[in-house]
Amino acid sequence: MSTATSSGELRVRIVGTGLIGASLGMALCRKGFRVSLDDTSPTAAALARDLGAGALAVDTADIPDVVVVAAPPDVVAAVVAQELMRWPDAVVTDAASVKGSVLSALQDMGADLTRYVGSHPMAGRERSGAVAAQPDLFEGRSWVVAPGQQASAAAIDMVRQIAVAAGSAVVVMTPDEHDAAVAAVSHVPQIAASLVASRLRDLSSVAIALSGQGIRDVTRIAASDPSMWTQILSGNAPAVRAVLEPLAEELGTVLEALRHLESKPDTGAVGARAVLARAVADGNAGQARIPGKHGAAPTTYATVVVVIPDEPGALGRLLRDVGEAGVNMEDLHLEHGVGQPFGLVELSVLPAAAQPLITALSALGWPVHE
Amino acid sequence: MSTATSSGELRVRIVGTGLIGASLGMALCRKGFRVSLDDTSPTAAALARDLGAGALAVDTADIPDVVVVAAPPDVVAAVVAQELMRWPDAVVTDAASVKGSVLSALQDMGADLTRYVGSHPMAGRERSGAVAAQPDLFEGRSWVVAPGQQASAAAIDMVRQIAVAAGSAVVVMTPDEHDAAVAAVSHVPQIAASLVASRLRDLSSVAIALSGQGIRDVTRIAASDPSMWTQILSGNAPAVRAVLEPLAEELGTVLEALRHLESKPDTGAVGARAVLARAVADGNAGQARIPGKHGAAPTTYATVVVVIPDEPGALGRLLRDVGEAGVNMEDLHLEHGVGQPFGLVELSVLPAAAQPLITALSALGWPVHE
Repeated sequence: MSTATSSGELRVRIVGTGLIGASLGMALCRKGFRVSLDDTSPTAAALARDLGAGALAVDTADIPDVVVVAAPPDVVAAVVAQELMRWPDAVVTDAASVKGSVLSALQDMGADLTRYVGSHPMAGRERSGAVAAQPDLFEGRSWVVAPGQQASAAAIDMVRQIAVAAGSAVVVMTPDEHDAAVAAVSHVPQIAASLVASRLRDLSSVAIALSGQGIRDVTRIAASDPSMWTQILSGNAPAVRAVLEPLAEELGTVLEALRHLESKPDTGAVGARAVLARAVADGNAGQARIPGKHGAAPTTYATVVVVIPDEPGALGRLLRDVGEAGVNMEDLHLEHGVGQPFGLVELSVLPAAAQPLITALSALGWPVHE
Repeated sequence: MSTATSSGELRVRIVGTGLIGASLGMALCRKGFRVSLDDTSPTAAALARDLGAGALAVDTADIPDVVVVAAPPDVVAAVVAQELMRWPDAVVTDAASVKGSVLSALQDMGADLTRYVGSHPMAGRERSGAVAAQPDLFEGRSWVVAPGQQASAAAIDMVRQIAVAAGSAVVVMTPDEHDAAVAAVSHVPQIAASLVASRLRDLSSVAIALSGQGIRDVTRIAASDPSMWTQILSGNAPAVRAVLEPLAEELGTVLEALRHLESKPDTGAVGARAVLARAVADGNAGQARIPGKHGAAPTTYATVVVVIPDEPGALGRLLRDVGEAGVNMEDLHLEHGVGQPFGLVELSVLPAAAQPLITALSALGWPVHE
């Protein structure tokens, strides 16, 4: 285990210099870590170095305190095992988006599990490769640290240090908890988006031209890479299946209701409509639980809407007045209508603060709506 | 049929002054149309009038040339029939999102189908009611005109005039073509979003906190109104069923592949993985067909992200500095992570303004990211 006492002296070896590896290197270099970079492609490693992600491993004699494996999902376990063998004093972590299967593969290989702590930075971009890397990729994002039962406390702490240094909020979960969570919030949505998008293949051009923002949002992630997603879904098959099965059952019920309304629109239509209404209402309830981007507890805020003139400084004046009213905003959204001489500002505040804020802003002449 | 020769003299009666009716009234008034407003709720009609959507029908003696029925889906056919009877010289259209069932209901009622031309403006917002109305709601959007076989050419042309005056691009389709198209690009995505969101209901808070932009996008429309969607899905049951059935079959195949990988990860894994890869690849192909936003000059804004401390007045100070930099914001979004000492402000500006803004804010000490 490392004897480095200040994080500034930590030597971090990053294996795999794609988007995640290169971004992490850039972030850690800025914090004064000594980062070395390795990749099966020397060109990819050199690109990451040129972007400021660290030194090439071949150019340093550093013995790493921590190794971060940021390789494609299907080789992660093998690379982690290799690194554990090669650096017998280092803590090894990985950044793969599935944790249970990596851990059990390592177990099967007889790897030293006291020094392995799986992790999963919840960050990414639609673009891949070092060329898309950014040092702030992890800033404000969740970083799951998912230690197995044999992991040492010191190893867990060291991985946590990496995540914190990258600007992330650390969430500790078991590998199984992690895999169940990402099945629901990431893997099943991916499958749903792909299946919905798939239906568009045979649509006429006139029909597809009717696409609005809804289908765009639902299918945005359907543009993801098939080979990466095959690895992810295969690696998390049990957890994905567990979420997808009840979804398929519910879909069957909805289909049954639609068939009923189609063939016998009058008899039993009330029951069939209730099935549809419940499906949408259940979706409301689930959707409402999704927190703000950084993993906030879902809090219900009151919304105060203010109409402001579309001129520079108007929003600044409004927010100064909000501040002087002693109210702290939880969220704010500004909407501009094209060609409209005004904008709508939606202020989210704690429910108790809404009325005082309305009173204060109204008194100052702002057109306020609840 | 009207004898008005200039569209400026067209008398348009709007029945139903919610989001669609009020927005249309605002748009048509600006084009010089004589708009009268009616609603089962006098308060709703009065609100639309106050927002500049037209005169109250009770205050005018106008005989309409065109009636636009913008009522909830389940009463549209009845209201259209009523209006056809009440105004024997007027063309009547509606704005419901399903067209075949309205037409066949009118047929069953023996309505005068020469003067009825169904239509569907492809515009909307997450919020409803006249209070959310905007005169530019239809600008650059598709507006489907879906005449039945008996509709007169003059009636079709008059409805087209309304759509064009509202700023929309007219798309003419048969009612069946329309219903099949919206089943694929709107109704099935709605069901998928609801079912995916529904799975989040029982997730732990820690698990749901891992939600990223993917699940947010996939489930955004899951926040839609259950009763409105029950009406839409019921009204379009055959077309929705026709798209949903093959989707459910494909989902079954994906589930089978996952079960296979779970129970026999080694035998036949290649075939199971191929199923997953094909599902994602088919989604790629479908997603790639979605065109850019409806004819609208797709204004792409540059995003500048600023990290601000989570304290009263911070946002106000930032916006004052943005204003002093002489930059006009097009949109703004603030994200707060609960328990985090900072917030992320996303400023959308014209691309040419991004670099000057970054330079100005950086010089003032704001942590700015592109």
